Amino acid sequence: MDFYPVAIEKLIEEFAKLPGIGKKTAQRLALFVLNLPKEEVDEFAGALINARGTIKYCSVCGSFTDTDPCSICSNPNRDKSIICVVENPKDIMTMEKVREFNGVYHVLHGTISPMSGRGPEDIKLRELIRRINGEVEEVIVATNPNIEGEATAMYISKILKPLGTKVTRIAHGIPVGGDLEYIDEVTLSKALEGRKEI
Amino acid sequence: MDFYPVAIEKLIEEFAKLPGIGKKTAQRLALFVLNLPKEEVDEFAGALINARGTIKYCSVCGSFTDTDPCSICSNPNRDKSIICVVENPKDIMTMEKVREFNGVYHVLHGTISPMSGRGPEDIKLRELIRRINGEVEEVIVATNPNIEGEATAMYISKILKPLGTKVTRIAHGIPVGGDLEYIDEVTLSKALEGRKEI
Repeated sequence: MDFYPVAIEKLIEEFAKLPGIGKKTAQRLALFVLNLPKEEVDEFAGALINARGTIKYCSVCGSFTDTDPCSICSNPNRDKSIICVVENPKDIMTMEKVREFNGVYHVLHGTISPMSGRGPEDIKLRELIRRINGEVEEVIVATNPNIEGEATAMYISKILKPLGTKVTRIAHGIPVGGDLEYIDEVTLSKALEGRKEI
Repeated sequence: MDFYPVAIEKLIEEFAKLPGIGKKTAQRLALFVLNLPKEEVDEFAGALINARGTIKYCSVCGSFTDTDPCSICSNPNRDKSIICVVENPKDIMTMEKVREFNGVYHVLHGTISPMSGRGPEDIKLRELIRRINGEVEEVIVATNPNIEGEATAMYISKILKPLGTKVTRIAHGIPVGGDLEYIDEVTLSKALEGRKEI
């Protein structure tokens, strides 16, 4: 039962394809777009086409980039002996914001998840193994601290250790500024486990 | 502090301009788009340009349309003697879903809101008054049941009554399926006020 002109219906449909955007939100977004100046809509459409057209995956780390290799992989000041393994390109951006890590990255583009039928061959693990050479001293696994992320970290460790590579996992614990009262038991137990002398 | 290639940054920026879309969501949407097949992105961009290019306002009721007058205004089966006044084009879609109203519409494109500095001249009131002729028997004001909607309804009533037009307001009351416990006092008092013999 649709009462919008076809062109609006089509636009609502397109917005509704985006993740987390329901029918109601899609409708709101489409009507908002109709009220924008024509140039702004053209700019939006252009940004879509341009991003999809110019962005590719870095052949080294698998991140999004407009140059190949990406700006991090091709930066001579980055330490190629430490590879930080993340699930998605956006995790790189999160890591970079911390400004503490000067190594390079490897994007898995997912996790191992037997529940969802995703095995080791469905993520960029082979590409990671191929990068391990005498130069690489440490692989920091920074997958998310959930079941799938942990399983993936375990798998990576099992695969890389026989190659003589040090594999580390980012620490679990209480977030800075967090409140003990609101921390779940698993996190608290990890925090205890990882306690340090002060 | 941005670490994305320029084309991605630009796309994130464009998404973030949409109402209710924050920086994080914009980032998620942009990265989702990058993973779509090229044809789908082109289709999305095309839908944007096409909707903005072909959709105009109906010169009679002010709704969105691809033909002028719109399909409702030009429908000979719709009763032109009853005009339902709504705030936005999407309210027409909501009314039409009820399938009870066979009159025509008038879109105000906003409300009177002294707090936000929007007066009667900032909404399509003049256009409504111009539509009032001997043929129009009733104007149903279906603006939202909030302060601005009520103020607008009052104003319309004050303006149109001297012209001899019957002005009605949609009823306030308890939503069907609602629970008395969770109804606010103002709604409940309106529900009492509007009680009917059964």
